[in-house]
Amino acid sequence: MSFNTFGKLFRFTTWGESHGPAIGCIVDGCPPNVPIKESDIQKELNKRKPGQSKFTTQRKEDDKINILSGVFEGKTTGTPISLIIYNKDMRSRDYETIKNKFRPGHADFTYFKKYGIRDYRGGGRQSARETAARVAAGAIAKVVLKNKIGAKYQAVGAVIQLGILGCDINKWKDKTISTNPFFCPDKSVIKLWEKYLLGIRKAGSSCGAIIEIRARGIPLGLGAPIYSKLDMDLAAAMMSINAVKGVNIGSGMDSAMLTGEENSDEILQRKGKTSFKSNNAGGILGGISTGQEIKISFAVKPTSSILSSRKTIDKFGKNTTISVKGRHDPCVGIRAVPIGEAMMHCVILDHYLMNTAQNKI
Amino acid sequence: MSFNTFGKLFRFTTWGESHGPAIGCIVDGCPPNVPIKESDIQKELNKRKPGQSKFTTQRKEDDKINILSGVFEGKTTGTPISLIIYNKDMRSRDYETIKNKFRPGHADFTYFKKYGIRDYRGGGRQSARETAARVAAGAIAKVVLKNKIGAKYQAVGAVIQLGILGCDINKWKDKTISTNPFFCPDKSVIKLWEKYLLGIRKAGSSCGAIIEIRARGIPLGLGAPIYSKLDMDLAAAMMSINAVKGVNIGSGMDSAMLTGEENSDEILQRKGKTSFKSNNAGGILGGISTGQEIKISFAVKPTSSILSSRKTIDKFGKNTTISVKGRHDPCVGIRAVPIGEAMMHCVILDHYLMNTAQNKI
Amino acid sequence: MSFNTFGKLFRFTTWGESHGPAIGCIVDGCPPNVPIKESDIQKELNKRKPGQSKFTTQRKEDDKINILSGVFEGKTTGTPISLIIYNKDMRSRDYETIKNKFRPGHADFTYFKKYGIRDYRGGGRQSARETAARVAAGAIAKVVLKNKIGAKYQAVGAVIQLGILGCDINKWKDKTISTNPFFCPDKSVIKLWEKYLLGIRKAGSSCGAIIEIRARGIPLGLGAPIYSKLDMDLAAAMMSINAVKGVNIGSGMDSAMLTGEENSDEILQRKGKTSFKSNNAGGILGGISTGQEIKISFAVKPTSSILSSRKTIDKFGKNTTISVKGRHDPCVGIRAVPIGEAMMHCVILDHYLMNTAQNKI
Amino acid sequence: MSFNTFGKLFRFTTWGESHGPAIGCIVDGCPPNVPIKESDIQKELNKRKPGQSKFTTQRKEDDKINILSGVFEGKTTGTPISLIIYNKDMRSRDYETIKNKFRPGHADFTYFKKYGIRDYRGGGRQSARETAARVAAGAIAKVVLKNKIGAKYQAVGAVIQLGILGCDINKWKDKTISTNPFFCPDKSVIKLWEKYLLGIRKAGSSCGAIIEIRARGIPLGLGAPIYSKLDMDLAAAMMSINAVKGVNIGSGMDSAMLTGEENSDEILQRKGKTSFKSNNAGGILGGISTGQEIKISFAVKPTSSILSSRKTIDKFGKNTTISVKGRHDPCVGIRAVPIGEAMMHCVILDHYLMNTAQNKI
Repeated sequence: MSFNTFGKLFRFTTWGESHGPAIGCIVDGCPPNVPIKESDIQKELNKRKPGQSKFTTQRKEDDKINILSGVFEGKTTGTPISLIIYNKDMRSRDYETIKNKFRPGHADFTYFKKYGIRDYRGGGRQSARETAARVAAGAIAKVVLKNKIGAKYQAVGAVIQLGILGCDINKWKDKTISTNPFFCPDKSVIKLWEKYLLGIRKAGSSCGAIIEIRARGIPLGLGAPIYSKLDMDLAAAMMSINAVKGVNIGSGMDSAMLTGEENSDEILQRKGKTSFKSNNAGGILGGISTGQEIKISFAVKPTSSILSSRKTIDKFGKNTTISVKGRHDPCVGIRAVPIGEAMMHCVILDHYLMNTAQNKI
Repeated sequence: MSFNTFGKLFRFTTWGESHGPAIGCIVDGCPPNVPIKESDIQKELNKRKPGQSKFTTQRKEDDKINILSGVFEGKTTGTPISLIIYNKDMRSRDYETIKNKFRPGHADFTYFKKYGIRDYRGGGRQSARETAARVAAGAIAKVVLKNKIGAKYQAVGAVIQLGILGCDINKWKDKTISTNPFFCPDKSVIKLWEKYLLGIRKAGSSCGAIIEIRARGIPLGLGAPIYSKLDMDLAAAMMSINAVKGVNIGSGMDSAMLTGEENSDEILQRKGKTSFKSNNAGGILGGISTGQEIKISFAVKPTSSILSSRKTIDKFGKNTTISVKGRHDPCVGIRAVPIGEAMMHCVILDHYLMNTAQNKI
Repeated sequence: MSFNTFGKLFRFTTWGESHGPAIGCIVDGCPPNVPIKESDIQKELNKRKPGQSKFTTQRKEDDKINILSGVFEGKTTGTPISLIIYNKDMRSRDYETIKNKFRPGHADFTYFKKYGIRDYRGGGRQSARETAARVAAGAIAKVVLKNKIGAKYQAVGAVIQLGILGCDINKWKDKTISTNPFFCPDKSVIKLWEKYLLGIRKAGSSCGAIIEIRARGIPLGLGAPIYSKLDMDLAAAMMSINAVKGVNIGSGMDSAMLTGEENSDEILQRKGKTSFKSNNAGGILGGISTGQEIKISFAVKPTSSILSSRKTIDKFGKNTTISVKGRHDPCVGIRAVPIGEAMMHCVILDHYLMNTAQNKI
Repeated sequence: MSFNTFGKLFRFTTWGESHGPAIGCIVDGCPPNVPIKESDIQKELNKRKPGQSKFTTQRKEDDKINILSGVFEGKTTGTPISLIIYNKDMRSRDYETIKNKFRPGHADFTYFKKYGIRDYRGGGRQSARETAARVAAGAIAKVVLKNKIGAKYQAVGAVIQLGILGCDINKWKDKTISTNPFFCPDKSVIKLWEKYLLGIRKAGSSCGAIIEIRARGIPLGLGAPIYSKLDMDLAAAMMSINAVKGVNIGSGMDSAMLTGEENSDEILQRKGKTSFKSNNAGGILGGISTGQEIKISFAVKPTSSILSSRKTIDKFGKNTTISVKGRHDPCVGIRAVPIGEAMMHCVILDHYLMNTAQNKI
């Protein structure tokens, strides 16, 4: 796991800049003989695609996936799978005015200072466009997991907080999620969220969000202590997503306020099956999956590209101001849902392979 | 970074069980010619050592460090540094009664199910005793950083929330931290915390905590996007610590509730120096350090070993109950402070080396 | 270093099958701000390209390189460099007859048995076509090394044995190498080699070769003992090339027959410079470069695709025979010269970066 | 695989200097529930131990192994296994005279120049004493392989060339190997070798050797192309051993001189079993095991510590001479036999685990 590669046995390496000719990734370590089609990947990419509602950027990114290697006659061969998305609708002129200025909250400043050079067009490598490549990798991991574990395996993501507005987590319904443009799991708040976000958008402002991913059908025993703990790798996975600033497993930060009595998930045996009275642990104990639902949530900070003028400096070290027009998401957190799901798929498959290696020989 | 090894260029591998003959670690990739003494390491270990106040476990663990290799005539040689702590005060008889039962909230269940075998004495490998080894590795990283960056480099940790009691973060004073048994940075709450934790302890209960680590004197440019982002590696580092369930960078989970205007840390140039009006980013943008203070906080769940009887099962799949007597910390979070500092040192040095490789050739 | 990725800090990941739409690689960890052009890479690829003389396969592979990312306004940006070569001249029909048979000496049998599936067209992933991707990665490493170390850095490869015919190593002249189709460094044997290889080719047979790579201008101190020794990594690099069966560093296998007196390269100091009386060590002691010329040679087995009928089995486990027609190199070893040079560049740069990290902080 | 760690899933990290208090290693990734005793490891160490005949150094190294972790009630637990050997018989005074001089052929010069510091006592980290740690790791790998594959798995090493004297490889008998102090497999040459090596020893000189390792009972399908090929990893493993300068797989360097007809190992099916008419490939095709015997040989250069005076320089850059007295092996290659076997065990187990991960899920 280093630089532009994620994973240990199931590994993907992403490449590409926002306004370069293409972006893509190499998926390495994929088991052979798993049926996979471009449409399996396209389906997941379409969930992340911008321009789908008035609540996301109006840029048109077709995000059409192409498989260049590793799949033969419809099946994986065990060799690296190269995936590519050619870039279109790149209006580089939009960025000429900010070529020499560092947008606050963006990585313009740090990339330039670290490398002494940066592709400023559309954010270059720091653009969230990179996440399309990982959604593609995650789609492959999902197909493999469904193939090996069965249909019971699933990872479902939703936005559970939109700016200052929460939702009732107890009203979470999987099927509600795809019926609204916010990936909100609680239908009682959708109208309110809609009104709120429209206001944000009209003001040229932005807001943050909290996303929760729930994975089910997870085999007991995934996770390799001490430094490949399942929760450690999941936290790293989510924190690697652009604009993510916090990660919770199970009760997360709130667990600090619990007593030992409240927090301990008591264990029961019923009809040959082990169950737990609660799931404060989020399905992971000592870095190893318990077989319960895995629950992870993460916060996405508000989009940094806003209309209001902000103080900043330029690359020559002069004070100036900036106001970012362009076509931006009022809440980038929304599109983080399929990305979080993808990262979950990748981490679970990676640990599934590792556990197989150590325990199934 | 896998299994029992942490880090990329500055790497440490820990080993040992709570009640085995010894625990230890190998530090690999340490730059040569850095003066290091056992006392540099012992000093940090003493901060983590149990039995120092009535608020931590009364077990006596001397935690005396020995350097077995990699240091010659008082200086590192660039070869692996082997560190060992011989175990003492191991009352294995304390654990005989729980040999076959899984303590709720502990990793007894998952270790046994994953591996089919576990050293149950004192928690074996899953014991927080492993963290002594990483505190030792962190002590070496700290010496190297001080040697290379200078005295301005420092990482200071504190407990900022003890169970249901917070503190006033604006009253943080570094020097307050070492004057109280809670590593609390705000002296106005210490009395209250003392009373509260005594109550918890007398009840045989436990509580969680939030720890914050602040690192200063960090060079601009550390962090290797996309999958070795500095915040990603820090989140992984903290989440790898026993009982940690949530991690925040800068504004963390709260950033979901901010607007773009509130969140963007405006940039200013004054007298040839770049500064920021705020630090919601926690000193990291796009996975790269900005040169500001790095702020990371994490939640430690309440100690799972409590006096109250809890429902559980045994290794034969039978329902039973358990009540853990032994000598336990009412709040393990307190001792996580030096551990969090150690992980910060290790991650910063690792990225310092990586940045040197890529940018200083 | 695993599966389809080579290297530690300077890493490349190759992908693609012989008869798929394209092949390529991702170069990760390349230092920023190094000027690089597609023509720098094309030049090296042209040396490997088939169809250049009657002594190599008559397949036409244009091997036109495209840079898709990581280079902005002519300079590297520190982000991953994606390189792609679209495949042309793929006569898949040539391979229909051997679709179900395992060619002896090829990896048909092992790929099929390992993965249960294989892209048989043109050898699929096992084809030496993959080496074009590494020549491209090596070309980038070479540019970086020239940029950082200076023109004195060079790695020069040659064929020093062609089948049963050797050459006089003492007559090695760098400039002779590019004047003949064999990359032979000794012009006195070229006529003989030509006659010999024509005979082999006409007979539909093949022969092996020994290639030697000499690298000069190597800084003292590259190599990280014990398990990243420079010679260890070079041996791995060369052994990873298709059809390579043996590797020598310096005196190599012959050193077994030397006495300690003959073998020890005595050290001398003259006018402030250290020199050695001989170079049996091949420029590496204890896994670390001495500053001398690095010498490595490796054997390439004869092309396995020959005209003579050979006994084999098919994928259904039936005995059969096979005779491979197609358009094959009578000696694949010849085209291994630029590949060996490329691997040398990559290993040297990787260790140059590692040494920088550990010793230049 | 980096710095002092070898392997991917089955990994060991060695540490320690020749004259420090101890040496050791951590074995990580060992499957759980495998019975292992200290005597399993001691047995292998005893084969490497010096002072066993007049043909090896007369230093007394007890090499008594201690297991400090990872084994509970006689079985592996899946957690890291820490192994330690306390050093004894360290006559540091022997080395005082060469403290400031670089012994030709040794790594004194390169370690000092790279790190600016070195533990010169007994060669410090560069000493072959490090190999005791890997023999210990290999012993564990061997036990695991015997446990998982069965008794048919074995790796047998022998010296097949001693200085200028070869042996008849066709007379190889496994049981001959342990009956003579040279690990020679051909009893017809033992007397001659004895006389030859006595001469070398009396002259204070030294000679090289070629060692061959044969591994049997290898499952078909081990090896992960392209950059974790089985032969690539084996070559790296052997080249990492002190003083090794060349490695051959199967016909090795000699394959350069074969024709395609001679080299291709024809394939036959008989009674449901696949066999090969020959084994020039050394049991590996395309980096994947064929199920045949794996054959690898490597050359060990002559011991660099010899009695004759040699020219060298000191650490102050002055010309001088050196003659190494001490207690040295006239042929270090002999003791490389158990080391080569150990590395074979480790690589095979590592690939066995990797293949399980990718193909047995």
